[in-house]
Amino acid sequence: MENRKRIEVCFSPYLFPLFKEEFDIIVVIDVLRATSAICAAFDNGVEKLIPVSTIDEAKEYQAKGFLVGAERQGKIVEGFDLGNSPYSYMTDKVKGETVVLSTTNGTRAINLAKDCETVVIASLTNLESISEWLAEQNKNVLCLCSGWQNKFNLEDTICAGAISEYLLNTGNFTSNEDSSIAAKYLYLSAKDNILGYLKSSSHRRRLRNLNLNKDIKYCLTPNQTDVIPVLKDDALVKMDI
Amino acid sequence: MENRKRIEVCFSPYLFPLFKEEFDIIVVIDVLRATSAICAAFDNGVEKLIPVSTIDEAKEYQAKGFLVGAERQGKIVEGFDLGNSPYSYMTDKVKGETVVLSTTNGTRAINLAKDCETVVIASLTNLESISEWLAEQNKNVLCLCSGWQNKFNLEDTICAGAISEYLLNTGNFTSNEDSSIAAKYLYLSAKDNILGYLKSSSHRRRLRNLNLNKDIKYCLTPNQTDVIPVLKDDALVKMDI
Repeated sequence: MENRKRIEVCFSPYLFPLFKEEFDIIVVIDVLRATSAICAAFDNGVEKLIPVSTIDEAKEYQAKGFLVGAERQGKIVEGFDLGNSPYSYMTDKVKGETVVLSTTNGTRAINLAKDCETVVIASLTNLESISEWLAEQNKNVLCLCSGWQNKFNLEDTICAGAISEYLLNTGNFTSNEDSSIAAKYLYLSAKDNILGYLKSSSHRRRLRNLNLNKDIKYCLTPNQTDVIPVLKDDALVKMDI
Repeated sequence: MENRKRIEVCFSPYLFPLFKEEFDIIVVIDVLRATSAICAAFDNGVEKLIPVSTIDEAKEYQAKGFLVGAERQGKIVEGFDLGNSPYSYMTDKVKGETVVLSTTNGTRAINLAKDCETVVIASLTNLESISEWLAEQNKNVLCLCSGWQNKFNLEDTICAGAISEYLLNTGNFTSNEDSSIAAKYLYLSAKDNILGYLKSSSHRRRLRNLNLNKDIKYCLTPNQTDVIPVLKDDALVKMDI
C-alpha cells in the first residue's frame, strides 16, 4: 500500500502551483484541440514541436522561417499557416519539420509545467498508449488539464479521469485528491458515449459555433495513435517506445 | 430564453477572480464544516457572526471580550472556545450573542466575496430554503465552493450541484460553465446516498481521522434548518424570510 504511486488531476493551470512540487511526471491535456493536434502532428512525422505562450514569440519564430501555428479563441490567428486543428497536421508538408505552436490554453499549460522532471502530452487520441507507458514508470503522476481560459472544462477532465482509472486499476497507484476522484466519476459516466456526454459542454458549444464538428469528432475518438510527445530541452519530440 | 439568469459553480477560491464580476449573488459553501456550523449557529439564536480570515484577527476580537471560534486543520485552535463543529453552536450560551469565527477555508471564502452585491451562506442543511430563496431573486447566481486549501472538494461541489439542479429545473436559469455542468452531474450521481458517495473523499477521510463522524453525518443531512445567513456590513445575520 505505502509503495503505491499517486495519480492526481489538476483542473486548471491556475491551480497548478498547489500541486506541482509533489509530482515526477506532468501529463498535459488539452483535448479540444491543442494536445490532440500535437499527437496528430507527431503521428504525421513532425520532428520537433516548440510550444510558445505568446503570439509575439510565434511571430519571432515565423520571421526566422519556421513553420508556425497560432490559435486564439478557436481560430487560426491571421498571418499564420496552421492552427490547432489536428487535420492541419495531416499533410506531407510537416514531415520531418520543426513546428512552432501557440494556442489559447494548451501550449501555455505545457510551458507552465516545463521545469518539472518529465512532461508528456496526452489526448483521447493517444489514451491507451500514454496510460500503458505511465503504468510502467513507477512515478507520481499529475494530469494537468489546460481548461478554458484557466477554468475547468469537461473534456480534459474526462481524459484525465480515463488515465486515472487505468492507473488505479493496475493496483500500483492511488488518488488522494477529490479532483481525481471526481474526474474518475465523470469519466465513468461519460465513457460509453463521450460525444453525447459532452454535447452540453460549454467548450464544445463554442467550437460548434465555429463549424468544427469534424475536429471535435476526431478529438473525442480514443486511441487513434500510439505516439507519446515528450518535452526535451523546451521542445516536444516523439518518445522512443 | 434570453431572459434566463445564470447559475454557475466556482470550484475554488483561487478561481473566483475569473468569475466574480458577472454575478449579483454569491453563495458561499463549506459543507465540512464552516457553513454548516454557521447555519446551525443562526438556527440556535446567534444574533450576528463576524467571519475573520486570520487567527490574529480572531485573537483581537477575543481580547475585546467576544465569543470567538477558530479552527485550523479540522481542530479548534488552542485558546479558543469554539471551532467549526455545528454541535458547538447548539447551546444556550450563543443565543442572542455576536460570534466571531475563523476557519481554514470557509471564512476566507466569505471574505473574498464580501465586495459583491449579495453574499449568502449555503450548506446541505439549509439546501431547500436557500434554493427556494435564490429561485425568487431573478439574479445571476454564483456558488463559491470553499474547497480544501484552495483545491476542489467533492462535498461543496455536490451542494453547489444540488442548488444548480433546483434552479435549472425552474426553467428560469441556465448554466454556461463546464464546472456547473460537472457539479450537477456529480450531485445527480450522489444524491441518493451522499454519505456513501463521499466515503472516499479526501476531506471526509481527513475528518474521520479526527473522529468527527457525528459532525459529518449532521453536515451531510439535507434540510435541517430554514435559516439563510446573509452578509451585511461585514457580518453575517439571519435573513428575514
